[in-house]
Amino acid sequence: MPETHLRRRAALRSRLRERELDALLVVDLRNVRYLTGFTGSNAALLVGAGNDSDDGTVFCTDGRYVTQSARQVPDLDLLNERQCAPAIAKLAGEKRYGRTGFESHRVTVDELDDYTAAATDVELVRAAGLVEELRVVKDDDEVEALRMACAAADRALADLIEHGGLRAGRTEREVARELESRMLDHGAAGPSFESIVATGANSAVPHHRPTDAVLTRGDLVKLDFGALVDGYHSDMTRTFVLGAPSDWQREVYDLVAAAQAAGRAALRPGAAVRDVDAAARGVVEAAGRGDEFLHGLGHGVGLEIHEAPALAKTGEGRLSAGMAVTVEPGVYLAGKGGVRIEDTLVVRDGDPELLTLTTKQLVVV
Amino acid sequence: MPETHLRRRAALRSRLRERELDALLVVDLRNVRYLTGFTGSNAALLVGAGNDSDDGTVFCTDGRYVTQSARQVPDLDLLNERQCAPAIAKLAGEKRYGRTGFESHRVTVDELDDYTAAATDVELVRAAGLVEELRVVKDDDEVEALRMACAAADRALADLIEHGGLRAGRTEREVARELESRMLDHGAAGPSFESIVATGANSAVPHHRPTDAVLTRGDLVKLDFGALVDGYHSDMTRTFVLGAPSDWQREVYDLVAAAQAAGRAALRPGAAVRDVDAAARGVVEAAGRGDEFLHGLGHGVGLEIHEAPALAKTGEGRLSAGMAVTVEPGVYLAGKGGVRIEDTLVVRDGDPELLTLTTKQLVVV
Repeated sequence: MPETHLRRRAALRSRLRERELDALLVVDLRNVRYLTGFTGSNAALLVGAGNDSDDGTVFCTDGRYVTQSARQVPDLDLLNERQCAPAIAKLAGEKRYGRTGFESHRVTVDELDDYTAAATDVELVRAAGLVEELRVVKDDDEVEALRMACAAADRALADLIEHGGLRAGRTEREVARELESRMLDHGAAGPSFESIVATGANSAVPHHRPTDAVLTRGDLVKLDFGALVDGYHSDMTRTFVLGAPSDWQREVYDLVAAAQAAGRAALRPGAAVRDVDAAARGVVEAAGRGDEFLHGLGHGVGLEIHEAPALAKTGEGRLSAGMAVTVEPGVYLAGKGGVRIEDTLVVRDGDPELLTLTTKQLVVV
Repeated sequence: MPETHLRRRAALRSRLRERELDALLVVDLRNVRYLTGFTGSNAALLVGAGNDSDDGTVFCTDGRYVTQSARQVPDLDLLNERQCAPAIAKLAGEKRYGRTGFESHRVTVDELDDYTAAATDVELVRAAGLVEELRVVKDDDEVEALRMACAAADRALADLIEHGGLRAGRTEREVARELESRMLDHGAAGPSFESIVATGANSAVPHHRPTDAVLTRGDLVKLDFGALVDGYHSDMTRTFVLGAPSDWQREVYDLVAAAQAAGRAALRPGAAVRDVDAAARGVVEAAGRGDEFLHGLGHGVGLEIHEAPALAKTGEGRLSAGMAVTVEPGVYLAGKGGVRIEDTLVVRDGDPELLTLTTKQLVVV
């Protein structure tokens, strides 16, 4: 999709000119991928501010990736060096890019020393997050990758349940393993983060890691997992009950489901992210359980599993159409059990687009 | 093992005093783990130079990890903050640690700005790699973890072959998936890096990623993989042939096996790392195939899959007893196929200790 990457680089160049930068040195590999399509493990990019018709971007990778980059990045000049970032910094000097931005949120202090030594007559300027700001609003190609990642997770979960994978007697670890294996069956390159399978009292721990704890009749079982497809991460949580739910399980489940619905309903372009958090949190607080909702409501998702915007009490900014976010309230009763329900959605004019399609009704397995 | 961590911190304090540092701010999570045993995803550490009897180290993590850190780090004062590193930098000011080192190879430019703002009256000094220098020589606990990681990989490979997992008609991806699954059966937390399964001409690509290429009779099949156990990484490569080997396959295999044996024999305390590389490379060069050995001989392995020392032409320094390294020569015939044979070993006085025990005889499957 060279046009996609060309369009993204044009948007970046326009930001560089706004900031009076002559160029940006891009070293974060997700940002390189976003701007070029390259998926290898060593690369850097020099994007000159130029003008709209001039895409004089230079791409650097090393000999191991020459074949791959010819296929993935056919449209850019290639610099073949092992130490990509210093080589690109040197090039900035040769091209007389006086003010060159660098990703100060990614570049280490020692690396900056190397760049400074290599970039003669260049002022290296802190320029954190310029590409990430573009990445917040997803384009159609990105939404399609997220859709596929969410579908792989939905299908894996459906298979797991249909084949009796979620049953008393199994360990959390066994369930996590089957779930991850089934995501591979449905086209995932891997899990998008370490899967959470938490049964019984463990479900009250928000980020529990799977153990040898055994699923037992009467347990709440919380599954928080996702698939990685084309570099994009899906993220979904569902909570089940093994056997008939008790009154407190039903009560907590219904409360979280109502909060989650309120959070989804608040996803509108222009909404302040903290108001979205408040919409869901208010439901939990009104039930007197505000202290048991231990984390923010959600986060952006894309080439990283956690990216902007943060839907949280202290979050800044407003939603725009095209942002991909999670909505994931939870209520956790320490020592007893907890419920979290999470979807991945895309903010749209009107109702948001739901990407994780597994039912949110309480499923008794 | 609080004694182990106490001993490691004492060794670090002695280095801090040599460098005239009052303290070190440790943010790299592998270094935190090495010095404390903590395995969570958010932490920082302030190690004061003090004196040998005074371990006034302060450990910081956030509320999610209070229970876990009470178990894993019972011996240190706990600071409970979400933004660990700035909180620890602030503490350095309060403790009047005038010259405080920071990990300039890990800390970003923006993070250093935050630390500087937080650490009143503290001179923050570049101090890259101090903990990594300690980590180069493994103690008994570390070697035991590496031994278990290597055993998990050995057993997984034995199971794979015994159950016919390496056969014509399967894809590289299927083999990789079975191998990784079998490592989990043998106690691995996961693969220690993305497994390489490369069949036929793909085996000539040193770092080939598994594809849907089908294993075919007559192919060389190269497997490079490892297991992660207690945070430690094993690393092993074996190359098989599907059916009777042809003459060129046999010749290349025997050459690489001889080079690998020469590399292992050169592993002695005091040996220059580049001489170890040369010992193996010389065998390949003498056969006129030096240009087909495309990479260094090996690397250190431990809490990271690649760490010091580099056994390479341009490597610096000498071996010491207790270093854990790989020895992995390869010969790659572009478009035809390649052979790599790799062990993980510990340098000992006398012969090195071999941790990867799978046979290096040519196995015909």
